[in-house]
Amino acid sequence: MAIKWINYDQLDASSKLASDAKVDLTKVMTGASGEERVKKYSAKMAADLTFNYAAKNVDDTILADLQKLADEAGLVDKFEVLYNGEFVNVGENRMVLHHLTRGQLGNDVVFNGVNEREFYTGVQKRVAEFAGKVHSGEIANEKGEKFTTVVQIGIGGSDLGPRAMYLALENWARVNGFLKMNAQFISNVDPDDAAAVLANVDVSRSLFILVSKSGTTLETLTNESFVKDALKKAGLDPSKHMIAVTSQTSPLAGSSDYLDSFFMDDFVGGRYSSCSAVGGAVLSLAFGPEIFDRFLEGAAAEDKLSKSRNVLDNPALLDALIGVYERNVLGYGSTAVLPYSQALSRFPAHLQQMDMESNGKSVNRFGEEVSYPTGPVIFGEPGTNGQHSFYQLLHQGTDIIPLQFIGFKESQQGVDVEIQGSTSQHKLSANVAAQIMAFACGKDDENKNKKFAGNRPSSIIIGEKLTPEALGALLAHFENKVMFQGFVWNLNSFDQEGVQLGKVLAKKVLAHETDGALKAYADIFGI
Amino acid sequence: MAIKWINYDQLDASSKLASDAKVDLTKVMTGASGEERVKKYSAKMAADLTFNYAAKNVDDTILADLQKLADEAGLVDKFEVLYNGEFVNVGENRMVLHHLTRGQLGNDVVFNGVNEREFYTGVQKRVAEFAGKVHSGEIANEKGEKFTTVVQIGIGGSDLGPRAMYLALENWARVNGFLKMNAQFISNVDPDDAAAVLANVDVSRSLFILVSKSGTTLETLTNESFVKDALKKAGLDPSKHMIAVTSQTSPLAGSSDYLDSFFMDDFVGGRYSSCSAVGGAVLSLAFGPEIFDRFLEGAAAEDKLSKSRNVLDNPALLDALIGVYERNVLGYGSTAVLPYSQALSRFPAHLQQMDMESNGKSVNRFGEEVSYPTGPVIFGEPGTNGQHSFYQLLHQGTDIIPLQFIGFKESQQGVDVEIQGSTSQHKLSANVAAQIMAFACGKDDENKNKKFAGNRPSSIIIGEKLTPEALGALLAHFENKVMFQGFVWNLNSFDQEGVQLGKVLAKKVLAHETDGALKAYADIFGI
Repeated sequence: MAIKWINYDQLDASSKLASDAKVDLTKVMTGASGEERVKKYSAKMAADLTFNYAAKNVDDTILADLQKLADEAGLVDKFEVLYNGEFVNVGENRMVLHHLTRGQLGNDVVFNGVNEREFYTGVQKRVAEFAGKVHSGEIANEKGEKFTTVVQIGIGGSDLGPRAMYLALENWARVNGFLKMNAQFISNVDPDDAAAVLANVDVSRSLFILVSKSGTTLETLTNESFVKDALKKAGLDPSKHMIAVTSQTSPLAGSSDYLDSFFMDDFVGGRYSSCSAVGGAVLSLAFGPEIFDRFLEGAAAEDKLSKSRNVLDNPALLDALIGVYERNVLGYGSTAVLPYSQALSRFPAHLQQMDMESNGKSVNRFGEEVSYPTGPVIFGEPGTNGQHSFYQLLHQGTDIIPLQFIGFKESQQGVDVEIQGSTSQHKLSANVAAQIMAFACGKDDENKNKKFAGNRPSSIIIGEKLTPEALGALLAHFENKVMFQGFVWNLNSFDQEGVQLGKVLAKKVLAHETDGALKAYADIFGI
Repeated sequence: MAIKWINYDQLDASSKLASDAKVDLTKVMTGASGEERVKKYSAKMAADLTFNYAAKNVDDTILADLQKLADEAGLVDKFEVLYNGEFVNVGENRMVLHHLTRGQLGNDVVFNGVNEREFYTGVQKRVAEFAGKVHSGEIANEKGEKFTTVVQIGIGGSDLGPRAMYLALENWARVNGFLKMNAQFISNVDPDDAAAVLANVDVSRSLFILVSKSGTTLETLTNESFVKDALKKAGLDPSKHMIAVTSQTSPLAGSSDYLDSFFMDDFVGGRYSSCSAVGGAVLSLAFGPEIFDRFLEGAAAEDKLSKSRNVLDNPALLDALIGVYERNVLGYGSTAVLPYSQALSRFPAHLQQMDMESNGKSVNRFGEEVSYPTGPVIFGEPGTNGQHSFYQLLHQGTDIIPLQFIGFKESQQGVDVEIQGSTSQHKLSANVAAQIMAFACGKDDENKNKKFAGNRPSSIIIGEKLTPEALGALLAHFENKVMFQGFVWNLNSFDQEGVQLGKVLAKKVLAHETDGALKAYADIFGI
């Protein structure tokens, strides 16, 4: 097919959307209309999840125009060429193949004679075998004792995604007998980060995973050095306590400094690498490869739904389009991600990177400045905690912030207590349901200080329970949502040139090659 | 003095500020001008901290007009009546006395015959005595074993502030021999939160602090019940493992269900309660009362600076005014808080509550709708982690996000490693210095994908080391900043009516008293 990469404001559907009558949630979400919307504006996701968008500012007309936008921009066609191996990351001249880490959506993708799907599954198999040997004690410390802790050393995409996924399943795994090793993470170049983690683990029983695609990430190499020092001070041989996850061409690959190396390649971006060896090594060691497989299955199943050309059957696409409508038609500048699940405490931080690093850009994929807003600010904390924190602004502040709720019918650990006639889990669910309606419909009051204007849009993803499959589906949903939004805005969502300048200047400071204000700041810090 | 509570847009200085020539950071922050600004635009804070605002969009003209704004709005006068006990929280008809928890700024404040400063110090003294007995083993578990862990049960202000302060000092305390007890926190009504914390502590050696001013916070009572169940299942007597921090009039006060009760009152709001018994109990138990005293001293010293009528000598006031300029003149909708210190990992989450719950409001203190933007969205993560995450959008996104950096010359733990010719701590400092300049000056490039537009404003608070005093000063700085902004916008920053509607609707769901859309959502969750 012929793909047209075209700016959002050049699409007919964008003008159509701008002129559509706005939906007032305080009207449509009340009475029978509201009940009908909750039942109707709902799309099935994988792993028993449901995307409900009843409380978004859409109606059948706007949804039809979002479908037109999807068709006119060829969003699903673009997804198709992406997973079939077109070099859609134009800035870096790379394919974008993270979907292949968890399934085969289209044609075989072969690069330099290597079938990429086989490459990724091959690595997963090697990771699984290695994890099995660690769990059985075949690979052990120098005294022959089993490793009990796994510590990931990485930053950005090598940290946020794997950490969020680990935390999401840690307690589920514990109560279900799947927690094989405790996992810790070292990311920040702040020496207090590594020192704090090392103070809390038994290094003699710890296996460290060094994760850096290029093998040159300064923070990660610094922390590796920090950890090696600690191992040596404890009389241990660092090479018997470390593995590497890196690219085949990196200086780390196959080095005798590591027990083993597991490879990723340039076609999986850091922030999309949770399903590659970057997430696979730590999650397979922590929970066992079977659990990691279940996570991948959930993601793969969700990916398949993203192929649908009918926006109503394609939750990631629909979520993306509604987000574009909120950003470009309604003019909202940020989005809050609010999981009513403590296990998802760091999921918003991962989405923050995934979304803001992908679509926080001012030029289109051809390097031309765009004249419309692109990626929003993403932030969030788990509910009900957030209710007792920043929800005040969400309800009564002067700006409207679209909301993305996530909730589950069952808790992960199944331990609960009944007080005032209801369980904690029911209280949690009741709160998220209540919040959706409070935001949508508001409440008038003679005392304007107690008035809620309402018409504050939210969607919710509802699941049975946060299992590995559900987590994989959630992850894929948001990855694909961000991808579709990048397509609408005509961005390259897969590079990150915006991180470079700071790196260059930091090196200058450390080399004392500065003048003017930068030297003045360096002087204050005594560098 | 006669205080005039007046809307921002009715102040002459607000029009003057709007017409002032804008400052272009790409121009003023280069060359000699930049160097001069870094040296000149700097204000001393308490505890060896410095507030540097060279990279903000201000110049001498704008600063003079910010001074006029401060004078015209009587901001310091308003602070004065606040700490002298005027009932400035008009919505709830309450005084606002959190400053008295750490010092005496003005006149004695007496209410119902009680000197409020003496009330707070009296509670602190009782907390200190109690902590001493726990540390000595005089108060111990039923077997006579010392308590080793303290677990705070609270939500919102009873959680975020104390948790952020604990994490900020935990590792500093460990290396300096002050870590007397490990602290944990249970907040979310999600039963998985309490279950996870309890799975990681020895309940027989744990002392629980129940924190709820009203004694009726549903999440907290639910979690108390959860914890009591766990204690009973372990064959322990809950009343021998719990203390309460609450108001004298709450149902919890003096109950025999607790080893002891420590009081707060209605004049310290939840999000301003870190220096009251809400933070004092857990911090005194974890680190010892002497460390908590040092934290209070830092806060008190910073408070004193907030009394200055010269904005250039009053960092909290100046920070507040620059923030107002960014929000109301430059039109920026959010602010990122970026501490280059892993110990401050949850400090942004605390500021998020403090700021957004205080000033996320659309009506002024008289309940009249305001026609200007008020409190921004606040979000943030520690650097350098954020650099590898959302900084892409901060550098190259379509919206400008003002930034608030925090950095220290020394690490907390003093363990470091040199790699590529510099320590980790130097790398950390070099990065934050570099980021300020990258954001301010940007960089042109023929390839527009590699272009940085610059003119993205930031300030930085620089300290020697994150000590208890520095932490106290930081906290007070932001509390007073938010207070001054509330005064400028003519808001009541001390109530939170926006949290009520959700609570009311959640109760209806649990009581099955719903219809329409809310019933439909409740049905999906099976409530």
